[in-house]
Amino acid sequence: MDFFNCQTLAEARRLVLAHAASADIGSETVGLAAAAGRIAAADCLCREELPSFPRSTVDGYAVRSADTFAAGEGIPALLTVIGEVAMGQTTALVLGPGQAAAVPTGGMLPSNADAVVMLEHTERVDDRTLLVTKPVAPGDNSIARGEDATTGTVLVRQGQKIAPLDIGVLAACGFAEVSVYRRLKVGVLSTGDEIVDVSALPQPGQVRDINSYTLAALLEASGYTAIRYGIIGDNYASLRQKLAEAAAACDAVMVSGGSSVGARDYTVKAIEALGGPGVLLHGIAVKPGKPTIFGMVGAVPVFGLPGHPVSALIIYHQLVRPALAVMAGEKVQRVFRVPAKISRNVASAPGRDEIIRVRLLPKDGEYWAEPVFGKSGLICTMTEADGLVVIAPEKSGLYAGEQVEVEMLRC
Amino acid sequence: MDFFNCQTLAEARRLVLAHAASADIGSETVGLAAAAGRIAAADCLCREELPSFPRSTVDGYAVRSADTFAAGEGIPALLTVIGEVAMGQTTALVLGPGQAAAVPTGGMLPSNADAVVMLEHTERVDDRTLLVTKPVAPGDNSIARGEDATTGTVLVRQGQKIAPLDIGVLAACGFAEVSVYRRLKVGVLSTGDEIVDVSALPQPGQVRDINSYTLAALLEASGYTAIRYGIIGDNYASLRQKLAEAAAACDAVMVSGGSSVGARDYTVKAIEALGGPGVLLHGIAVKPGKPTIFGMVGAVPVFGLPGHPVSALIIYHQLVRPALAVMAGEKVQRVFRVPAKISRNVASAPGRDEIIRVRLLPKDGEYWAEPVFGKSGLICTMTEADGLVVIAPEKSGLYAGEQVEVEMLRC
Repeated sequence: MDFFNCQTLAEARRLVLAHAASADIGSETVGLAAAAGRIAAADCLCREELPSFPRSTVDGYAVRSADTFAAGEGIPALLTVIGEVAMGQTTALVLGPGQAAAVPTGGMLPSNADAVVMLEHTERVDDRTLLVTKPVAPGDNSIARGEDATTGTVLVRQGQKIAPLDIGVLAACGFAEVSVYRRLKVGVLSTGDEIVDVSALPQPGQVRDINSYTLAALLEASGYTAIRYGIIGDNYASLRQKLAEAAAACDAVMVSGGSSVGARDYTVKAIEALGGPGVLLHGIAVKPGKPTIFGMVGAVPVFGLPGHPVSALIIYHQLVRPALAVMAGEKVQRVFRVPAKISRNVASAPGRDEIIRVRLLPKDGEYWAEPVFGKSGLICTMTEADGLVVIAPEKSGLYAGEQVEVEMLRC
Repeated sequence: MDFFNCQTLAEARRLVLAHAASADIGSETVGLAAAAGRIAAADCLCREELPSFPRSTVDGYAVRSADTFAAGEGIPALLTVIGEVAMGQTTALVLGPGQAAAVPTGGMLPSNADAVVMLEHTERVDDRTLLVTKPVAPGDNSIARGEDATTGTVLVRQGQKIAPLDIGVLAACGFAEVSVYRRLKVGVLSTGDEIVDVSALPQPGQVRDINSYTLAALLEASGYTAIRYGIIGDNYASLRQKLAEAAAACDAVMVSGGSSVGARDYTVKAIEALGGPGVLLHGIAVKPGKPTIFGMVGAVPVFGLPGHPVSALIIYHQLVRPALAVMAGEKVQRVFRVPAKISRNVASAPGRDEIIRVRLLPKDGEYWAEPVFGKSGLICTMTEADGLVVIAPEKSGLYAGEQVEVEMLRC
């Protein structure tokens, strides 16, 4: 496979995203407490005025602000206290000119009150007499009805991943239930005659199944349901059968290779055999990750990932993850990018994207990205990186000190 | 409550963390696939050599590297192929001087081989004759036995949150099960006569329960089990009973106030009534979050948070979250901080920490932190911030362009 005959990473991503966009996984209704981390299937529009009544944001006295004009320590405004608003209750009080009412934080403002004077700027002379030592403007220390949100305000957009703080906003507006997309179900297959289960002691020549555990953990961390279909030897019939099973049960499938050429051929052949569009991409001009495969079995995308765990991880991050997010209904994807300076020269071959793993080191108020090196076959270096830096095909490397963007792997 | 008589945020944090450190929540053993996001209860030490055999990292020919010395396109080295290594199988081949063996990516190296020549740097003349056009050094394109990890290598440290990529490293080293700390169980109580459930239509003067939903969602996002104890009116007997119930069932409890002074008094009184050290902190010199309470009911920390959702969120982030992480056994806490420049002048009162919410905006390869303003009573501004900036007590504000660190709320 020649790099220059492969599609670029950008082309591959466009192809994969175009197919992901046509997915329709359906929605379900969940209780608010279960909605965090899910993707909203419809806009959540506020159906009322929030707050539903004018509220005080401090402990103090509700007033007509004009009555406090020019009040000061020397010449306080003199007001008449006509009563007290109780917490959590409606009030029938109506302020006439020169009148005030005690109000607690969160309490309802009486009619005609348009501001609240903080307790510390008042002095209570007797039951009915109040001195105000600081003027307030209309709206001060209070929130008008509907000032926070009003009928039609978009609280959460369709396609938005609902964060814990969004839950608070939805609670405020009475969303006891939320319509969310069904959880994406992704099948994971590990292939290779040399692969044994994690509980086995590998014989010489064998290695344990790493990818199905890592990929399943990444999927679960994104809020998807991961189904591990175990290890399939380099055997076409077995792979075809398991892939058919996975494609029937899941929304998407990942097959991690099989580093041998034969194993990759089996993946291609099995995808083609199951009908539908078949293999749409075989090989990407990217390092690592060249032997990546993408195809469709009916409406189910199948990703053939490199067998090497670090390569599989990088292709998952660069190609699979964005596609799954689109399938899951996530319209606003936040890939968190941190600006940094690369700590040393890095050579790369032009004509392909080259993706390096970096550690982020803070220094003098900015981040430096230090490449994680080491032989590509090493597994343990996998956890040393904070993020990835993509060196574009038109570049022949990075110079020490050059500005880069680090796509965070975890934070 | 006077700011200058309160403890500082740093003092409060020290106090709370000291109590959190004495928690002992116990551990359990889980299967590897369930270990992501959990905290390791013991060091995971490699118990074998990884890889267990010398492996090729490319498709090519295993050689004795000395035999390729000075090989080039013009004068290739001439080697004798004595066989082929099969994938996933042991090999009995032994290389003599001038000999080579075909080996696939991941295949085992024959005895005496110390490097692999990539396929593209060889030419097979006939069944037994190989031309090598590029020299290799010892170790090239191969991994020695134990080069990745060796007996005793620390794969995951006690107290480390196990990330998806750590799962891969543990899989490689045969950890089918992992000892992790038990999931922290945290009770959440909302108090206040004015609070109604999210499914209710608030009457004038009432507001819906926001905090117990937001806090529970934040807890679950951190991997803890959240138990919502519902809404308790401003009634000492009810609060005391629910708090006793929660403290008996949970590892820690959060009581979100009651913005009224009376409600706060009930929280203090209920904590004191349940025995144990009682209330240890009442009021912090921080804005927002001044009315924060901390106490111990036996071995169970109880946090009294401000009633206002934004204040509750900030105190959760600054004080509760680090304490819960310590209780959960997490030794290495990654608060993700992004260096940025503040976009405008921000005034703050000296003598207390002031915490502002900011949005992060990338510009010219660096981030600018734009303060999220708006009246403190507004709920919907809660979701507009990316992170928090702490203005230290000795400062009287920030100047536009000043360097700050943003503690990320989400990313």
